[in-house]
Amino acid sequence: MSRIYNFSAGPSALPEEVLAQARDEMLEYGASGMSVMEMSHRGKDFMHIAARMKTDFIELMQAPSHYQVLFLQAGATAQFAMIPHNLLAGRTVASYVNTGSWSSSAIKEAAKYCRVHLAASAEADKFTRIPEPAGWDISADSAYLHYTSNETINGVEFDFIPESGGLPLVCDMSSNILSRPVDVSRFGLIYAGAQKNMGPAGVTVVIVREDLLGHARPDTPAVFDYALQAKSESMLNTPPTYNWYLLGLVLQWLKRQGGVAAIEQVNIAKAQKLYQAIDSSSLYSNPVHKNCRSRMNVPFVLRDAALDAEFLSKAEANGLSGLQGHRSVGGMRASIYNAMPEAGVDALIAFMAEFERTH
Amino acid sequence: MSRIYNFSAGPSALPEEVLAQARDEMLEYGASGMSVMEMSHRGKDFMHIAARMKTDFIELMQAPSHYQVLFLQAGATAQFAMIPHNLLAGRTVASYVNTGSWSSSAIKEAAKYCRVHLAASAEADKFTRIPEPAGWDISADSAYLHYTSNETINGVEFDFIPESGGLPLVCDMSSNILSRPVDVSRFGLIYAGAQKNMGPAGVTVVIVREDLLGHARPDTPAVFDYALQAKSESMLNTPPTYNWYLLGLVLQWLKRQGGVAAIEQVNIAKAQKLYQAIDSSSLYSNPVHKNCRSRMNVPFVLRDAALDAEFLSKAEANGLSGLQGHRSVGGMRASIYNAMPEAGVDALIAFMAEFERTH
Repeated sequence: MSRIYNFSAGPSALPEEVLAQARDEMLEYGASGMSVMEMSHRGKDFMHIAARMKTDFIELMQAPSHYQVLFLQAGATAQFAMIPHNLLAGRTVASYVNTGSWSSSAIKEAAKYCRVHLAASAEADKFTRIPEPAGWDISADSAYLHYTSNETINGVEFDFIPESGGLPLVCDMSSNILSRPVDVSRFGLIYAGAQKNMGPAGVTVVIVREDLLGHARPDTPAVFDYALQAKSESMLNTPPTYNWYLLGLVLQWLKRQGGVAAIEQVNIAKAQKLYQAIDSSSLYSNPVHKNCRSRMNVPFVLRDAALDAEFLSKAEANGLSGLQGHRSVGGMRASIYNAMPEAGVDALIAFMAEFERTH
Repeated sequence: MSRIYNFSAGPSALPEEVLAQARDEMLEYGASGMSVMEMSHRGKDFMHIAARMKTDFIELMQAPSHYQVLFLQAGATAQFAMIPHNLLAGRTVASYVNTGSWSSSAIKEAAKYCRVHLAASAEADKFTRIPEPAGWDISADSAYLHYTSNETINGVEFDFIPESGGLPLVCDMSSNILSRPVDVSRFGLIYAGAQKNMGPAGVTVVIVREDLLGHARPDTPAVFDYALQAKSESMLNTPPTYNWYLLGLVLQWLKRQGGVAAIEQVNIAKAQKLYQAIDSSSLYSNPVHKNCRSRMNVPFVLRDAALDAEFLSKAEANGLSGLQGHRSVGGMRASIYNAMPEAGVDALIAFMAEFERTH
């Protein structure tokens, strides 16, 4: 047996040294005499793990002190409802930008709670680009402006932070958080599931500006109330303790890599060489406008879809896993988050070239 | 270093052989070439893990086929809101039994969505007993009757399933699920956080009778809608995959112990000897009526609270951890869930006797 290169879109590859540390500490963490997953979340050993994880996250994100950082459950899908529950604050409209599958889901859920004003949409372009900001129509009476910084299915990514015309800017960063530096102070709220760049599934991180707290609808479920969660240090209910621990290990690993600015350079290098391989080939293609291409999720199609099955099975045989595109679009997709080593991308490119040579 | 006996109320001790298996499979699960926590939740390896976990759970609970079993997030605290969201079905009142801290929390949350009718309360008895069923006043126009089968803080437990007068019976079994056989067919809905008897924190199990699905309030968040979760096999959003896997390992372990009926006998033996040690002592006492005493959480106080600190530090030095009572009631508490071996209870009893002899 040996470990393979895993290009899954999420849950996805984790740094091997993180897994090795988790393995070594599984039965006994330090001098605690127990596994992290057995610890009381109120005990001093776990409180220390939680505090370090949070401190490391704030440091890596460079989140200013007037932001609260929460570690919640139930994924970005829960946030799609929590955001209107907490941020409408009596308003009846919110502006959304539609750049693909994830923003569409956010819009659909928000429509249960308010009128959704579509500030921009790339649907007419089949989600192959980010709508030009000059053409955005942001409704001034909106409670906030929401967008998705990276779309995993079509592989489009914002290479800029949009102007929100004074509205709180809300961003789903699930699939590119910690992959590039971000000026948190430009945002009202950032949220992200952990299972792509930060750790195993089961934790959702929320960074929210303090002045936006405390305005939840009266019927907001307690676990959905950012203010209550902030007040209880995200321990309103028992947190997924082991997931917090693993998230913490990934953050420590990222710091050892030099932090977000350093990993961004690796991410740029990985993405550039993979897109270059696709663009210079006559077998593979990617339809996304070049300045909107995702560094995290690289979808591509083969000239002839009849070759897909053979491509996937040969890739698997070569230790390259998880390359099947999302069922809604077909084709291939290589997700190359922070934890994918450059050697994995090199191995994929070499395999693609060899497959092209023989077909 | 060596493992200690961990009497935490939750998260709590796990079977050592479960942890050892998780350790051994951490970097590579079977022939997959990856950790379980790196797997796509839609991939065949994880789908197999998920299916086996669910099958084992249904088998252990002997859940009839007209029940759906869901694996959700955000703990029992989320269920406190989800239950009225889904089960009110147009009614405006629900009946609740108050037996302590957890049922009080359920009542407080439900009151956001309906009028809560208090069918019975043990508050006047300081939650030292389960209210006699003969005195319950169940409101017939209620959407359901809710109770908490075990209260972790005061250590009271139902030794019977209440009659609900035809209403769907809803039960929070977070702290005693799988510790004794239960006739699921008596219930409309059973829910339980995993972090006491089933695995690490981060999963909440819901067993719900199918006819109760499909009546959610129109503004129910998608992740809160049981019918949507059932339709998507609890994968409406990315599930906490590693937590599911660990839950599955605990279920396999429980089957190896002989299942629920067999572990119940161990639980009875552990609880009996611990209560006997308390009752026959002049230093320790437990105020709960004998037929209402919890087999899972055994709170006790020392004759003189000034001895508490010394008791706890000496216990810790003897490899007995997590014995401090809940901060709301003080004193001591030994949580002795399924995974606590009988030898752990024996060690605690021996320590208590020695402490009494010298004080």
